[in-house]
Amino acid sequence: MLDAAEIGHKLCKDAYDATIPELREALIDAQYQLSQSRRFATLLLLSGVNAAGKSETVNRILSWMDPRFIESHAIGRDVGEEQRLHPFMWRYWQVLPPKGRITILFESWYNAPTAEHTLCQITDAEFDQRLAEINRFERMLTDEGVLLLKYHLHISKKQQRQRLKRLANDPTTSWRISDEDKLSITYYRPLCRDTEELLRLTSHGYAPWLVVEAGDRRYRELVVGQSLLRALRGRLNGADKPAARRTPTEIEIEPPDRRSVLTALDFASCVAPTNYADQLAKLQARLARLTRDKRFAKRSLVIAFEGADAAGKGGTIRRVAQAIDPRRYHIVPIAKPTEEESARPYLWRFWRQIPRQGRVTIFDRSWYGRVLVERVEGFCSSSDWRRAYGEINDFETDLARNGVILAKFWLAISKKEQLQRFKMRERLPFKQFKITKEDWRNRERWEDYERAVHEMVARTSTDLAPWTLVEAEDKSFAHLKVLRTLCERIEAHL
Amino acid sequence: MLDAAEIGHKLCKDAYDATIPELREALIDAQYQLSQSRRFATLLLLSGVNAAGKSETVNRILSWMDPRFIESHAIGRDVGEEQRLHPFMWRYWQVLPPKGRITILFESWYNAPTAEHTLCQITDAEFDQRLAEINRFERMLTDEGVLLLKYHLHISKKQQRQRLKRLANDPTTSWRISDEDKLSITYYRPLCRDTEELLRLTSHGYAPWLVVEAGDRRYRELVVGQSLLRALRGRLNGADKPAARRTPTEIEIEPPDRRSVLTALDFASCVAPTNYADQLAKLQARLARLTRDKRFAKRSLVIAFEGADAAGKGGTIRRVAQAIDPRRYHIVPIAKPTEEESARPYLWRFWRQIPRQGRVTIFDRSWYGRVLVERVEGFCSSSDWRRAYGEINDFETDLARNGVILAKFWLAISKKEQLQRFKMRERLPFKQFKITKEDWRNRERWEDYERAVHEMVARTSTDLAPWTLVEAEDKSFAHLKVLRTLCERIEAHL
Repeated sequence: MLDAAEIGHKLCKDAYDATIPELREALIDAQYQLSQSRRFATLLLLSGVNAAGKSETVNRILSWMDPRFIESHAIGRDVGEEQRLHPFMWRYWQVLPPKGRITILFESWYNAPTAEHTLCQITDAEFDQRLAEINRFERMLTDEGVLLLKYHLHISKKQQRQRLKRLANDPTTSWRISDEDKLSITYYRPLCRDTEELLRLTSHGYAPWLVVEAGDRRYRELVVGQSLLRALRGRLNGADKPAARRTPTEIEIEPPDRRSVLTALDFASCVAPTNYADQLAKLQARLARLTRDKRFAKRSLVIAFEGADAAGKGGTIRRVAQAIDPRRYHIVPIAKPTEEESARPYLWRFWRQIPRQGRVTIFDRSWYGRVLVERVEGFCSSSDWRRAYGEINDFETDLARNGVILAKFWLAISKKEQLQRFKMRERLPFKQFKITKEDWRNRERWEDYERAVHEMVARTSTDLAPWTLVEAEDKSFAHLKVLRTLCERIEAHL
Repeated sequence: MLDAAEIGHKLCKDAYDATIPELREALIDAQYQLSQSRRFATLLLLSGVNAAGKSETVNRILSWMDPRFIESHAIGRDVGEEQRLHPFMWRYWQVLPPKGRITILFESWYNAPTAEHTLCQITDAEFDQRLAEINRFERMLTDEGVLLLKYHLHISKKQQRQRLKRLANDPTTSWRISDEDKLSITYYRPLCRDTEELLRLTSHGYAPWLVVEAGDRRYRELVVGQSLLRALRGRLNGADKPAARRTPTEIEIEPPDRRSVLTALDFASCVAPTNYADQLAKLQARLARLTRDKRFAKRSLVIAFEGADAAGKGGTIRRVAQAIDPRRYHIVPIAKPTEEESARPYLWRFWRQIPRQGRVTIFDRSWYGRVLVERVEGFCSSSDWRRAYGEINDFETDLARNGVILAKFWLAISKKEQLQRFKMRERLPFKQFKITKEDWRNRERWEDYERAVHEMVARTSTDLAPWTLVEAEDKSFAHLKVLRTLCERIEAHL
């Protein structure tokens, strides 16, 4: 594949100079249309061997465009403390552009696996596995509407050696030559082999790679610039994403016997008032000890609470929070996304709240909104919530593999109990704010929600991130079960 | 995930009997619509632990439907000689249904990787890698329009033990209990863990898994039947695939300097007539020896010839064939697909010609038609040929990993030389049949073809299956280069 980028492309100064003014004007125009319409975000990945001219190319592209709507990042292996203390992908989520803007990444999620495989730190199968994870991640991004463009700058081994030599010999540039650069000459062949494997496995219609022969500066710049223009125009003139999405295959049916994971619960579970205070104190003390444990400093904890309206999420969260050092936890209530959040892929607003090591984040409602309320109320398309199960599993797997302990609770009450609690809320003045018309409307969709919960549990309860269904008819029972589950999950991980 | 299928679903006889007549009628009706419209093929995969009732369920589904348009296959590890001597996936391509028909597979491509991982014969990373390959394969099938439904029948460990005991104790059924069944009790837990990983990584909107609680026979049959009906109806009433396909991102541009892998060739390459006969004889003898070599009996050879019209494919193929024992090779000319071929995924007609071990298949034009003639002439959509690069790479990687040696030749001539050969053909009576209006029309698209060839080489020339560009301006030179390349490729593999 890379051989086809060693055929000696070259552009003379006149031809280059004649093309640039028009290209710049067209790029600025496309960029302006994009920033006005805010139809999609653009992410441009630039990779290539050392000395292929990555930074020069990025600088040139930046110089051609309106700097207010474009930015570039190099997130390689050299990162700051905040980034090291968070799960690996967090660093890329931080720089994801909102709709209307363009971001250029010239170190990306491809760097680590490629470097590790070239240096024989991971096996062939592990390399392919990592690339498969990248595919899933990129598919999610593009399903969410991101325009993802990937360029690989290629130069021949001879060219690389010459360039590095020239840079090293010139006192004004020799500081740019690192040990890694010197190493890259030794690893040229294996790196090319890995790059070919990478191109083979991660080039798709929705996120294509373009290999650019980078020996000639003018040729290289013009190709990247014109290609970027073509892709932007194609997307600006084309249909908006939703229409182009694939119809999913619908395979689920209403279970003929109407049972679900929820009907299988025993709502008579309760705890005697005399035992409650005692057990609560013991469990809270145990949780406090665990979250202050030295070993916990290398882990973090993410708790997601979901449940029917009036199931008692607030009260349960309070009991959990009481047990944790306030400097260590953060409670995130999830409601309608903000404008900033809507402009980015769905999972962005959860990723930005993922705690660093030693910390706890408690989500009051969570990323499961997509397969619960958004599904039932039709706030997103059927293909959106159907693909969400897989995306959520990938997200949670990613967290768990990076040392995050996950606990997910569904607080379940019976339809009858909910009615009583609603009525109680309407009667008590200090609880009236808690009951709205929306709550009554949701109640009418009880059966739809029950089906959605069943499918959510069936599709996203995994070894790494299991669901705990909590019989919350008796609030005390629910508090204790949640606290006990939390303690047990942390203990299993320390 | 599997826990959610242990909630004790059950259906009484009356409820079951009341539903079946209507379901059967609806299934037959959907099947009839499908076979009349021939809009898509349906593939139903059924997996599950031993004794979960797979064969009973398949038998029931078969009994409900019109046997003329449905068939079932169990292609497990116990296969015949023909299957063992072909690349692994060949066995599944053999039974792929044409449009309008339904095939049930109750051993599938999931069996081998799952069994191997459960028995610790492959690592976690290798298991994920295999699942990623399955994802790519299934995506290709569904992109090609196949309706792919996947059911996993689940029973609890206790249920499995009870059932196997009951079967073993009854003299009329004890013959059904194999050693594998006994082993499956021991491996129940690890198998469930692997199944959860498999469900997590291979369930997609376009090819969803449905986990079916299989403890109760009636419930299990009804769920699979109703779900099949829902999926068939959804697809029969829905939009046809092409409209629903995703718009690909177009990133390629016309290279500003008009160079390509073809312009980089040296068309002056030639060989002196005095040397030709001698060298030809030597190379043919070498190829003859290699294809009769004992070690070749475990390999096979697939040769693909592509090239401009009148580039000399026929003559070159003749020189290659002369060197091989006629019982060992098979020449496959590729033209318009037959009706039978059009009814199946694009790669089917090439898979059916893949040789068994020890044999050679020579393709005169090949699977690259999709990214050459179909692309240039607009016979397929842009998203079809764009995804074809990845599909072809997967196909060739699959062959190469299964011991197939691949050689791909592009015979290149200049536009001027083609004109002379066309004129010559028109003058010579015995060659007139070789030149048609279509040839002249293709010639007008010379530049489009050149671009398509460049992109084909850039995207599909891989380590495992490299392209060889052959300067064919001088026919003798081309014959010798092809023969030499073939010999070297075989030698490198033996």
